[in-house]
Amino acid sequence: MGERYYNERMERIDRKELLELQNRRFRATVKHAYENVQYYKKAMDEKGVKPEDIKGVEDISKLPFTTKQTLRDNYPFGMMAVPKDEIVEIHATSGTTGQPTLGLYTVNDIEVWSEVSARSLTMSGLTKQDIFQITPSFGMFTGGFGFYHGARKIGAFIVPAGAGFSKRQIQYMIDFGTTMVCAVVSYILRLTETAHEMGIDPAKDTQVRKGVFGSEIWTEEMKKKISKAWEMDVYDIYGFTELCGPGVANDCKYHEGLHVWEDHFLIEVIDPKTGEQLGPEEEGELVFTTLTKEAMPLLRYRSRDLAKVIDSIECDCGRTHRRITPIRGRLDDMIKVRGVGVWPSAVEQTIMKYPEIGMEYQIQVTRKEALDYLKILVESKEKMDEFRKRELADKLSEELHNVLMIKPEVEVLDPMTLPRQEVGKAKRVIDNRQVQHT
Amino acid sequence: MGERYYNERMERIDRKELLELQNRRFRATVKHAYENVQYYKKAMDEKGVKPEDIKGVEDISKLPFTTKQTLRDNYPFGMMAVPKDEIVEIHATSGTTGQPTLGLYTVNDIEVWSEVSARSLTMSGLTKQDIFQITPSFGMFTGGFGFYHGARKIGAFIVPAGAGFSKRQIQYMIDFGTTMVCAVVSYILRLTETAHEMGIDPAKDTQVRKGVFGSEIWTEEMKKKISKAWEMDVYDIYGFTELCGPGVANDCKYHEGLHVWEDHFLIEVIDPKTGEQLGPEEEGELVFTTLTKEAMPLLRYRSRDLAKVIDSIECDCGRTHRRITPIRGRLDDMIKVRGVGVWPSAVEQTIMKYPEIGMEYQIQVTRKEALDYLKILVESKEKMDEFRKRELADKLSEELHNVLMIKPEVEVLDPMTLPRQEVGKAKRVIDNRQVQHT
Repeated sequence: MGERYYNERMERIDRKELLELQNRRFRATVKHAYENVQYYKKAMDEKGVKPEDIKGVEDISKLPFTTKQTLRDNYPFGMMAVPKDEIVEIHATSGTTGQPTLGLYTVNDIEVWSEVSARSLTMSGLTKQDIFQITPSFGMFTGGFGFYHGARKIGAFIVPAGAGFSKRQIQYMIDFGTTMVCAVVSYILRLTETAHEMGIDPAKDTQVRKGVFGSEIWTEEMKKKISKAWEMDVYDIYGFTELCGPGVANDCKYHEGLHVWEDHFLIEVIDPKTGEQLGPEEEGELVFTTLTKEAMPLLRYRSRDLAKVIDSIECDCGRTHRRITPIRGRLDDMIKVRGVGVWPSAVEQTIMKYPEIGMEYQIQVTRKEALDYLKILVESKEKMDEFRKRELADKLSEELHNVLMIKPEVEVLDPMTLPRQEVGKAKRVIDNRQVQHT
Repeated sequence: MGERYYNERMERIDRKELLELQNRRFRATVKHAYENVQYYKKAMDEKGVKPEDIKGVEDISKLPFTTKQTLRDNYPFGMMAVPKDEIVEIHATSGTTGQPTLGLYTVNDIEVWSEVSARSLTMSGLTKQDIFQITPSFGMFTGGFGFYHGARKIGAFIVPAGAGFSKRQIQYMIDFGTTMVCAVVSYILRLTETAHEMGIDPAKDTQVRKGVFGSEIWTEEMKKKISKAWEMDVYDIYGFTELCGPGVANDCKYHEGLHVWEDHFLIEVIDPKTGEQLGPEEEGELVFTTLTKEAMPLLRYRSRDLAKVIDSIECDCGRTHRRITPIRGRLDDMIKVRGVGVWPSAVEQTIMKYPEIGMEYQIQVTRKEALDYLKILVESKEKMDEFRKRELADKLSEELHNVLMIKPEVEVLDPMTLPRQEVGKAKRVIDNRQVQHT
């Protein structure tokens, strides 16, 4: 069977034709943003750049950046570029740490979101024949609806389970014969454990053989563990609220990076400190410019996500859209411990190599007498005696020392000891230092 | 401004033309059910009736009934009338008291659901200019998606808030300028209280002026209280999972019953004991036959809901579809206390007349020494001294005695004493008798 595409013509578009399309859409977006969003008019005027100075994507660095702070400063509707009665949907981050950031949609914006989600899900193997269980929450969070809009396009049998009720989710999988599932990364871990608690082996007792996960940073090692527990093909989907939620990029079956839908989103990678553009294969901050968004066009939106653009455009899947590496971290995620930057993903990558270790872990940072302490809590997969725990902890501590350049304390706990979350993203980093400051 | 319709031609269809349409669709539905659902083939064969014996709606009583138990016996896919790959969506009751009952949808079934929901919401005043906050949960529950599908058709600005997070919901209303809200009946009570707790007067400090509520039995008196607290027009929407969720019927601005979309659903009212059809203005159990459902056609589905069909077809709104009275109760809801049937709605109707009483209440039934005791807990709106509480309780007890034919004990509690629910339907009846049996 050949490769499946949702929109073969667009997914395999000739690069020259794509560039022309991008240039045309880019010029229109800049004009639309300048004429209808006060922030862009002001920021472009300050830089002395007019819409007519932008001939094509080669002029992108003349434009100002947009940041999360820009969106907060313009909350709720300052970034809206169309009359309010053309808006048909709004989504938002939970805003637990402050003001939510919003995504606004016209009818056409929903259509574009559905299209890129359908392409991404098709790339992850979803077909009309599948029974597709959607476990991210529906509502203001873009997860549930993003998958829903795409799967509706494909015509799959949707089980819109939404967040939580893990036992019921497993029961649905069995009763309805679910063949594919999507989830926030940590939630598929929760479902795996729930199945085991119910005496169900996901690989043998369910028909789930494909999965697409996102919304959290995860490593190759984690992917392998999930893949093995369910005997499923595992795919990585990328997106965020301000852009349109899941569907901006997705990996194909060759799993060598995530294709970004470049007819709708321009990508740049920049040095987060200087703002300078970086070349392919250079890691930096991903920056997105929307090419078709009507309600809330974004120019050079700084995602805070770290990745590289892969140099080679050729991919065995036949798609011509450029790929990014899986997100290695978020700029906000790096923890400074005794002046050394520690990436949670580096910790995950190291510990997940051990088959005797479970899938949950916690990174704790504390401060005692002006010194930072890093502690990693992991769970053993099967119960272990104290001697073996100690032995394993020492080995992990050694290896993490090599990777992180500082030596963490490691504690191996019994299975199912760490806190689990039914809903939302996992909280794997506990930084107690702020608390102790007060 | 004239009356607004979503689909004027269909909503004002000539009765003769409607009957022809119903007959045609009814014959097709019977044939479809007979040929594709084992249960219907068997049940019709047992009654000695073939699809060709059904010429039109006048033959409906030849057909077998379908009950909730039928659906449970055929869980999960025994009632499915199309190949599985034509199904695009499934919804389910929570099934907390046993197996869930399901609703299955083809692309066309979703289209029909969206259409009836759009007609119902237009009847409740929703327009493209509105900012419409959807507070029922999205997911397997049909509430969230039912409102969403309809509002998308209309092109309103949807705030898909989903269930829970009441303070955040009030904040959204203020930040986004929400003009219309939909909710499970008890949840709008919760939102009213939350606004007050936040120091916000819904009538003065929000722009919400229209609301559509359903999924629970409520009385005119409750409608008036909600309407007053928000200074909003209050509408009643009807539907349930097995049929398609909200949108089956809705009241128009004259509030003299709910128009049932008779081009998609045939209604009968029967005597729940004998199964005999009753005439207009006679109260009995509502029975529905779907006329356009592909995935899961239902013949004579017994809803357990009690109402009357209104005799007069003329309505000042110009719609020609027949009306039912608001649901007075569910057959499963009636509580037998010392052999006397007590309807929770009769209790609500009585207590809501008192302006000094809040909107929450609880009905408790206990058994002591083989005798049943009925106790009604209400809350005062403002704090009261013990003497006034006692006085009010006595008055209520007297009046409830007249209405219910048995005398309940009444206790007046302080404001905000009874338990509230953030998510799902209110639990207002606590029957402790089963527990004491064990």
